Amino acid sequence: MKPILSLVLAAAVITLSAPASAQFAKPEDAIKYRQNSMFVKSVHFGRIGAMVTGRIPFDAKAAVENADVVVVLAGQVMPGYGVGTEGGKAKPEIWKEQAKFKEMADVGLADAVKLAAAARTGNLDNLKAAFGPTAESCKGCHDAFRSR
Amino acid sequence: MKPILSLVLAAAVITLSAPASAQFAKPEDAIKYRQNSMFVKSVHFGRIGAMVTGRIPFDAKAAVENADVVVVLAGQVMPGYGVGTEGGKAKPEIWKEQAKFKEMADVGLADAVKLAAAARTGNLDNLKAAFGPTAESCKGCHDAFRSR
Repeated sequence: MKPILSLVLAAAVITLSAPASAQFAKPEDAIKYRQNSMFVKSVHFGRIGAMVTGRIPFDAKAAVENADVVVVLAGQVMPGYGVGTEGGKAKPEIWKEQAKFKEMADVGLADAVKLAAAARTGNLDNLKAAFGPTAESCKGCHDAFRSR
Repeated sequence: MKPILSLVLAAAVITLSAPASAQFAKPEDAIKYRQNSMFVKSVHFGRIGAMVTGRIPFDAKAAVENADVVVVLAGQVMPGYGVGTEGGKAKPEIWKEQAKFKEMADVGLADAVKLAAAARTGNLDNLKAAFGPTAESCKGCHDAFRSR
């Protein structure tokens, strides 16, 4: 069985990021969730970055595992920003420009899925090629919607 | 294509939890990672619990997404407890009884994989049946290795 197959199937299941329905009892819970999820995502994305830049050795299996974490968390961005959960570093624009925010979240998820697919090829060059666009997606959304 | 298929394939890729090699520059980073990852996992596992107990309506797609988050994070427990990262609520026994700790982490991952498989059947009774053992795995490991 080709490992890439599972990614293709997973991508068929994870089509678009989850909707932003009310998921948290209190805004503080949503803020904590967002911060925690972002940190975990950054750790795993950072490990792939370390492989891509040669700071740590390329490990194909670890790259897949790290990318999978990024994919599932990238698919859960929207539920973290439900109505009435403003706060933290989240700019108010998130709630004023929901369509744009969701579009950027969907692009981020799509890039993460491609990153995981690239990881599953077991080829460092493929991983490098997919890493840049994903990092750009992260940065683009942060620049637009996150306070410094 | 049966959604269950992707889970079976994913389970074939995610066989055992990742090894506990050094992944963090500072113990504080590992502690923060563990706490953040545990919180995110608890949010998603809690949503499945809310469906199982009827506090929120059963949503098959959301159950799958939530279970997938639990699976990938459950697969990343060991790297959070590398050598020299004692601290937080983690009991010293984690580092003294590595084999036992890893065994419980692997059981937790296996239970999470079963939970995701149950979610993919789209049947609430299956989800209920798989939820209990997974919750027991969580509790068993927390009782043994987490300070109150």
